[in-house]
Amino acid sequence: MAEILSALRSLMASHSPPLHALIVPSEDYHQSEYVSDRDKRREFVSGFTGSAGLALITKDEARLWTDGRYFLQAMQQLSDQWQLMRIGEDPSVDSWISDNLPREAAIGVDPWCVSVDTAQRWERAFAKNQQKLIQTSSNLVDEVWKNQPPAETNPVIVHPLEFAGRSVAEKLKDMREKLAIERARGIIITALDEVAWLYNIRGSDVSYCPVVHAFAIVTLNSAFLYVDKRKVSSKVSSSIQENGIEVREYGAVSSDVALLASNQLDKDTGLSSGRNDVCETGTCEAEENNNDLIWVDPASCCYALFSKLDAKKMLLQQSPLALAKALKNPVELDGLRNAHIRDGAAVVQYLVWLDKQMQEIYGASGYFLEGKGASKKRSETMKLTEVTASDKLEGFRATKEHFRGLSFPTISSVGPNAAVIHYSPQPETCAELDPDSIYLFDSGAQYLDGTTDITRTVHFGKPSEHEKACYTSVLKGHIALGNARFPNGTNGHALDILARIPLWRYGLDYRHGTGHGIGSYLNVHEGPHLISFRPQARNVPLQASMTVTDGRLVIPPYTDFFSLLRYHFVFNPFNACFTHSFSHFTISKHLMH
Amino acid sequence: MAEILSALRSLMASHSPPLHALIVPSEDYHQSEYVSDRDKRREFVSGFTGSAGLALITKDEARLWTDGRYFLQAMQQLSDQWQLMRIGEDPSVDSWISDNLPREAAIGVDPWCVSVDTAQRWERAFAKNQQKLIQTSSNLVDEVWKNQPPAETNPVIVHPLEFAGRSVAEKLKDMREKLAIERARGIIITALDEVAWLYNIRGSDVSYCPVVHAFAIVTLNSAFLYVDKRKVSSKVSSSIQENGIEVREYGAVSSDVALLASNQLDKDTGLSSGRNDVCETGTCEAEENNNDLIWVDPASCCYALFSKLDAKKMLLQQSPLALAKALKNPVELDGLRNAHIRDGAAVVQYLVWLDKQMQEIYGASGYFLEGKGASKKRSETMKLTEVTASDKLEGFRATKEHFRGLSFPTISSVGPNAAVIHYSPQPETCAELDPDSIYLFDSGAQYLDGTTDITRTVHFGKPSEHEKACYTSVLKGHIALGNARFPNGTNGHALDILARIPLWRYGLDYRHGTGHGIGSYLNVHEGPHLISFRPQARNVPLQASMTVTDGRLVIPPYTDFFSLLRYHFVFNPFNACFTHSFSHFTISKHLMH
Repeated sequence: MAEILSALRSLMASHSPPLHALIVPSEDYHQSEYVSDRDKRREFVSGFTGSAGLALITKDEARLWTDGRYFLQAMQQLSDQWQLMRIGEDPSVDSWISDNLPREAAIGVDPWCVSVDTAQRWERAFAKNQQKLIQTSSNLVDEVWKNQPPAETNPVIVHPLEFAGRSVAEKLKDMREKLAIERARGIIITALDEVAWLYNIRGSDVSYCPVVHAFAIVTLNSAFLYVDKRKVSSKVSSSIQENGIEVREYGAVSSDVALLASNQLDKDTGLSSGRNDVCETGTCEAEENNNDLIWVDPASCCYALFSKLDAKKMLLQQSPLALAKALKNPVELDGLRNAHIRDGAAVVQYLVWLDKQMQEIYGASGYFLEGKGASKKRSETMKLTEVTASDKLEGFRATKEHFRGLSFPTISSVGPNAAVIHYSPQPETCAELDPDSIYLFDSGAQYLDGTTDITRTVHFGKPSEHEKACYTSVLKGHIALGNARFPNGTNGHALDILARIPLWRYGLDYRHGTGHGIGSYLNVHEGPHLISFRPQARNVPLQASMTVTDGRLVIPPYTDFFSLLRYHFVFNPFNACFTHSFSHFTISKHLMH
Repeated sequence: MAEILSALRSLMASHSPPLHALIVPSEDYHQSEYVSDRDKRREFVSGFTGSAGLALITKDEARLWTDGRYFLQAMQQLSDQWQLMRIGEDPSVDSWISDNLPREAAIGVDPWCVSVDTAQRWERAFAKNQQKLIQTSSNLVDEVWKNQPPAETNPVIVHPLEFAGRSVAEKLKDMREKLAIERARGIIITALDEVAWLYNIRGSDVSYCPVVHAFAIVTLNSAFLYVDKRKVSSKVSSSIQENGIEVREYGAVSSDVALLASNQLDKDTGLSSGRNDVCETGTCEAEENNNDLIWVDPASCCYALFSKLDAKKMLLQQSPLALAKALKNPVELDGLRNAHIRDGAAVVQYLVWLDKQMQEIYGASGYFLEGKGASKKRSETMKLTEVTASDKLEGFRATKEHFRGLSFPTISSVGPNAAVIHYSPQPETCAELDPDSIYLFDSGAQYLDGTTDITRTVHFGKPSEHEKACYTSVLKGHIALGNARFPNGTNGHALDILARIPLWRYGLDYRHGTGHGIGSYLNVHEGPHLISFRPQARNVPLQASMTVTDGRLVIPPYTDFFSLLRYHFVFNPFNACFTHSFSHFTISKHLMH
């Protein structure tokens, strides 16, 4: 680890201009939450494996910023060359740099790995002290990473209409209507799940996320997919082209964005004379002249592509696909419901199996059979660990129809480990199951018809009074949220408090949001809506046919089975309908004390 | 009414430049919510008497904007020359003007009666259509108002330390520390309650609000009070001057703001050579040179005074007095508690009296004695109306120690009138009490030691099942809010939902906020915090020792007495303490259908 830092510091010193600091974000070229092994640059330099974090390397120091989900994990994983910076408690990275690095310092970053929003926020902060954000022309981490995994060449598959529910042609038409309304002549789509959703394609370039490393550009007349062509079979290629999409090499996006900026991209393809599909009224010719903007989502577009555009002709606002993707169509809703029924059955099979194992191996009094009081023998030869248990859970899931893998690394956690919000057990170091401790698992799967995310907190013996009080408070909060009816337009910031009020009564809280959107055979975390205390939850009103997780814990004994199969559609009297997927609540640190 | 409009239109036509439209806001020179009779210009031109609204007069039209509390009342009061514009449903005044008045139209307003924030928002909207906001040099309404009441000459009184709890010297010191931190050399204070609070003075210039028509300017070295000197007895004047405050004529504020802008105000008084009270460390001399800003609260300062300042040397942010005034000191908290106990006793006396009257006059089965079933006789000669009943309530209050009058016009309302959120019964037209209808009163008083605001909804006979369901839902919501414990920093936007969830379940809602701050022998509505769905509730975290109303309805029979005397201090485990005053919930239109 020390060699990596010193190699990077040499490159920083020889860079032109010399860099006082290098920022290594977690994100890939698409600002993804989960990234492929090749893109785990922040993990490579720091050793911290969490999904969110940012590394800063200066001449003398190395600091890692991460959020409350990962404080415990980062403290365990960071070597003593690294200092942990707690988001929300310590100064933010930009104000730390502005306050602690010298006046006129040069701070480097790979502009492909940082969003427009973030880069501009940094630049504003740095300007206070005449510091400059420098876009490095290559990624310095890649230069020192000797065994960096190669780029993936996993095949692109077509996501069929029976699961997608809406054709590419329809999605393109909808989007071009939005472009016309906003007077944009083109849009650059960089978020991997947006590209996959729009073009009805899937892949396996990133663990847990069925996406393809790809960019898209859509204009009023043309559509492009930028992808490593080795991944696209001729059959898939034909299917994509039938939708009027031209497949180009991944690296070509850079020059094509420049062509788009100078209005030569359509001409270049000979398609610019084609009529605008959207306009059928005859007023379109005149309007088309006004369509001069390029739409870029500043939260997901990388600074590198943004920098090729003319700032005056840019429409910087949330991608029209964010909301379109969040509003699930009836086929997606059916699929999500069906996937959850199969997934819930796998979880119940797991719980029954685990309960039996806990009694047989550890003499536990039992979860489903609480009170029966099994004998207190403990097996000498058999043993269950966090990893072997969760492997069994994956096994149950793998038997289900349409299973395609897990949707995120399973959190399988005993006792205090359950307080590490995004805990990831490792085979060598993980804990053994314990009949006297809480066991929490937070896991989900990818099915062709839907993505799941489910958490259950159980105890195979006698939980303490404190554990029962905590559990009951969490349950009360999530029943309150699950049963809420609310007017269309209510936001997730207002709803969030319903889950917390019973906890606050006991001085308890949790350091993460309460609910998040969920993809349809796509990312397990999906925006733009969320149920959270975070400010961004204020800006997205919840709407009918959005799907969102909320906490739902099991109540022993078997009523649990029905709870698992419950899938909420709350129709409220204001004609809003709100879909809850169940799942996902992690006992946080507070709850464990 | 027609003559007023035509007289105004003549003045608009002869104005230089000629005005296409004239805006007549509700506010006085201090952006007050409640104004003196002399300042009821919007009421004079439109006939609408509500506390909030804005009149717009164009060559051909007259429109009145008001909010949901007043839709029903405005529809009843506006003549057919006027059109009601519903805030939240119809276009806002600025976008209506921008979209409906001609390009380059001139829109006049008296710049003393509009805040900086509002005027600037209008200017931005008008600019889209090259329209201009014109500051009229005189108030055109005053010119056509023949019998406009004269300016008040009510005496200024000193609010003694035994009620204020903090001396003027201490308050000035606190404020000058905030000026120094923000590098401001002076502040213009225009909100009447801020002037009264800072200088520990009270008056009776505005009905229901114990304030004085006055401005204040405070610099690092000096303090000024601008007030009609006829109101200040020599004894009061001495007391004010003892605190280092110079009393000047009300009208002098205009020229003094200009002197302040050019840094001549202190010199003019010969005080500029005095040492800065705040600085005792010796570093102050150097720092003082940086103190070059004038602090102006854009939400309360009028556009007229703002226009005399140099935009580059202005600090436009919330007045430091807003939060300081909201965080009640221990003396104020004690006073508020004591005032509520006396006030609660008066309300119970009233309810007992009213219950007896309703049985004797109308043969009601009774409120406190529900179920006893009084005889169904109805008196031929006696009669209770909304006004005679509320006069009796005022009478009970008037017997209490430190009583100084009501804190707002009593809402005393029978049946459908209870759905008019800020209903104000008039002796000639008001309804008679009815044993078969809901009766709601929303009222409060000013006491030297505190201000109250209390609502009770009662029924002296047999409420319908629907009425019971509505009442119970409201009660559930307010118990949930009243019992909430929450971390310091939680905002009133998040808490608001707790009061609404039980109503939403039935498709019910109410068109107003849930709780508001309350003054200490000052305005009954006091910022900056509130519990509401409105965006501004997001920006002010609730803090220990703030006081805020929440809804609390009575439950018959006598447990009500204890409910009335309940005064919440919710200590939460995060060291935040949160004070609830009880009271204030109005059955809204939705609840009545």
